[in-house]
Amino acid sequence: MNSATQPANTQSISWQGGVDGCLVLIDQTRLPQELVLLECRDVETVQEAIKSLRVRGAPAIGIAAAYGIIIGIGGLPDEPALIRQRAAEIAAYLATSRPTAVNLFWALQRMTGALCGLDETASADQIRDRLLEEARAIHEEDRQMCRDIGRHGAELLGSRLEGVLTHCNAGGLATAEYGTALSVFFTAQDLGYPVHVFVDETRPLLQGSRLTAWELQRRNVPATLICDSMAAQVMKEGRVRAVVTGADRIVANGDTANKIGTYSIAVLARHHDIPFYIAAPRSTFDLSIDDGNGIPIEQRAAAEITDGFGRSTAPHGIDVYNPAFDVTPAGLICAIVTERGVIQPVTRENIAAQFADGDAAAPV
Amino acid sequence: MNSATQPANTQSISWQGGVDGCLVLIDQTRLPQELVLLECRDVETVQEAIKSLRVRGAPAIGIAAAYGIIIGIGGLPDEPALIRQRAAEIAAYLATSRPTAVNLFWALQRMTGALCGLDETASADQIRDRLLEEARAIHEEDRQMCRDIGRHGAELLGSRLEGVLTHCNAGGLATAEYGTALSVFFTAQDLGYPVHVFVDETRPLLQGSRLTAWELQRRNVPATLICDSMAAQVMKEGRVRAVVTGADRIVANGDTANKIGTYSIAVLARHHDIPFYIAAPRSTFDLSIDDGNGIPIEQRAAAEITDGFGRSTAPHGIDVYNPAFDVTPAGLICAIVTERGVIQPVTRENIAAQFADGDAAAPV
Repeated sequence: MNSATQPANTQSISWQGGVDGCLVLIDQTRLPQELVLLECRDVETVQEAIKSLRVRGAPAIGIAAAYGIIIGIGGLPDEPALIRQRAAEIAAYLATSRPTAVNLFWALQRMTGALCGLDETASADQIRDRLLEEARAIHEEDRQMCRDIGRHGAELLGSRLEGVLTHCNAGGLATAEYGTALSVFFTAQDLGYPVHVFVDETRPLLQGSRLTAWELQRRNVPATLICDSMAAQVMKEGRVRAVVTGADRIVANGDTANKIGTYSIAVLARHHDIPFYIAAPRSTFDLSIDDGNGIPIEQRAAAEITDGFGRSTAPHGIDVYNPAFDVTPAGLICAIVTERGVIQPVTRENIAAQFADGDAAAPV
Repeated sequence: MNSATQPANTQSISWQGGVDGCLVLIDQTRLPQELVLLECRDVETVQEAIKSLRVRGAPAIGIAAAYGIIIGIGGLPDEPALIRQRAAEIAAYLATSRPTAVNLFWALQRMTGALCGLDETASADQIRDRLLEEARAIHEEDRQMCRDIGRHGAELLGSRLEGVLTHCNAGGLATAEYGTALSVFFTAQDLGYPVHVFVDETRPLLQGSRLTAWELQRRNVPATLICDSMAAQVMKEGRVRAVVTGADRIVANGDTANKIGTYSIAVLARHHDIPFYIAAPRSTFDLSIDDGNGIPIEQRAAAEITDGFGRSTAPHGIDVYNPAFDVTPAGLICAIVTERGVIQPVTRENIAAQFADGDAAAPV
């Protein structure tokens, strides 16, 4: 089934109506058990949704916040100064919802920048129209970025997509629509390629089984869920012809930080002569860091491992090591797919070349 | 703390008293949240404990069943014929508790064999004494086997035990006392070696976090729990100097079936130049199978992955692949430690040599 036939219930974010419209979010905290659509008609609801991870994923958070400003100015009288002031206040308020979300600040700055760019004589309607236009542009640019990554990736992988493995969730839930790694699979399916995805459940937080499996199922992409420890066996059995994951940060030499377990999969892929690919937007690159040694690895709470499934599954007081990310060396990465094209082989020079036109990594 | 100071609460099985004594089991279904000791004073309780996995692990089941016969004849009058008949009936009854447990049948056959070996004129007390003697022998032989594996393994690994990784539970809970892989760690600690164990949680059934972490904690062996997907990262950080796991079946060329995820760890160890060892009794060898291709891989229920620990973590109806075991090729195994010594390198010839004295793999 083509995704276009059911946009409302597979898109993490949609805007319904005009300047008086409402924001509809998939409540990701209810997945995979229930698909609950959350209609946001006031700013507090948007702020709570971001804060409580009902909407998650850096691009998705930025888009939701941009629309949050439209909601906040919706009921105001036709007084331009009041609307301008209120929009700025809402931007400041929404910026507090996830303090470390770079895309959130970036999107809110784009909205306030659009406001500043308007002529001082702009009417209330002109202000409302311009802000909605900017929010829609942020949304649409992200959608297009996902589509471009998907198109480049599908062309690159071709028949290897008949058996492809992914880790964590680099999907539509985290972005405007198609995601990054998952966009490769969705786009390939749109193009009529045979696709079968093996999904690592991705301990400890199970983004693979909770979110990726759900997204693939919703779009009718054939998918098989496995535990992370089964990837090697599936590779050995010859069922996997490529691995594609997203990325959290890619540094100047191509070393890539992503969800813990990605490095393991990359090593296993190399052992089985299976190409390993990263699909990520240019905004993921951080060229200020020279190599993977400069990437800090966040340590997370022990309870994610010991009490993750609803009851305690480890003895009380046991020492736990819980790194949230790992770094896959560039040497294990066959290619990096961005919205601009394919970086292959993954070298410092080839990465620099993709950024040589001055259109640097953004948002940073 | 030396384990000998707290034998009652770290041994999966103990027998208290003489021929009128009782069997005490750790109820493994209550771990790791609670340490519950189950006192078995009738055969039905023993049968239920085996059937409900309160006692698990092939050697432990066999030992429990042997003592079950002693319990069953405990209250009978001093009539030799009656005792003989009842012992045979109990053996047949207990054999039904786990239909595929090879050690269960083997232990029960040893008990009935001891009965047959008695003179026809044996008194009631002589029968009772002989059966208890046989049950204790089964128990003690298993304990000695574990100790011998531990001793050979500790000598082999030496200072590598300062950072060692294990997968699943090859511990005392599954055996008379020290286990196989875990016996290496317990013995090394007894010998005063520094030991630090990284424990894979071992999805889907979490034997690592539920049982191995518990056993190590009980015996004060320094241990750190990780998710299976973190093993590669821990290796990359230089924290792991050896891997030791148990085995479910080792075939003629040394290919080894063990809990799913073992093969993955073996590949990751090779990539990081870390030696990978198997610790297993000679009874684990199945020389009738030529190589790993002949080992059937059991597929288990999807719910173990989608609904493992109290709540659903995957979308309803998702396809799941859940192999219970994988096969690690002999080429990735640095050595196999048995109660008889170390097989290194792991070749068909070296395995055959350890069985050349005619004392073939048993029980089979």
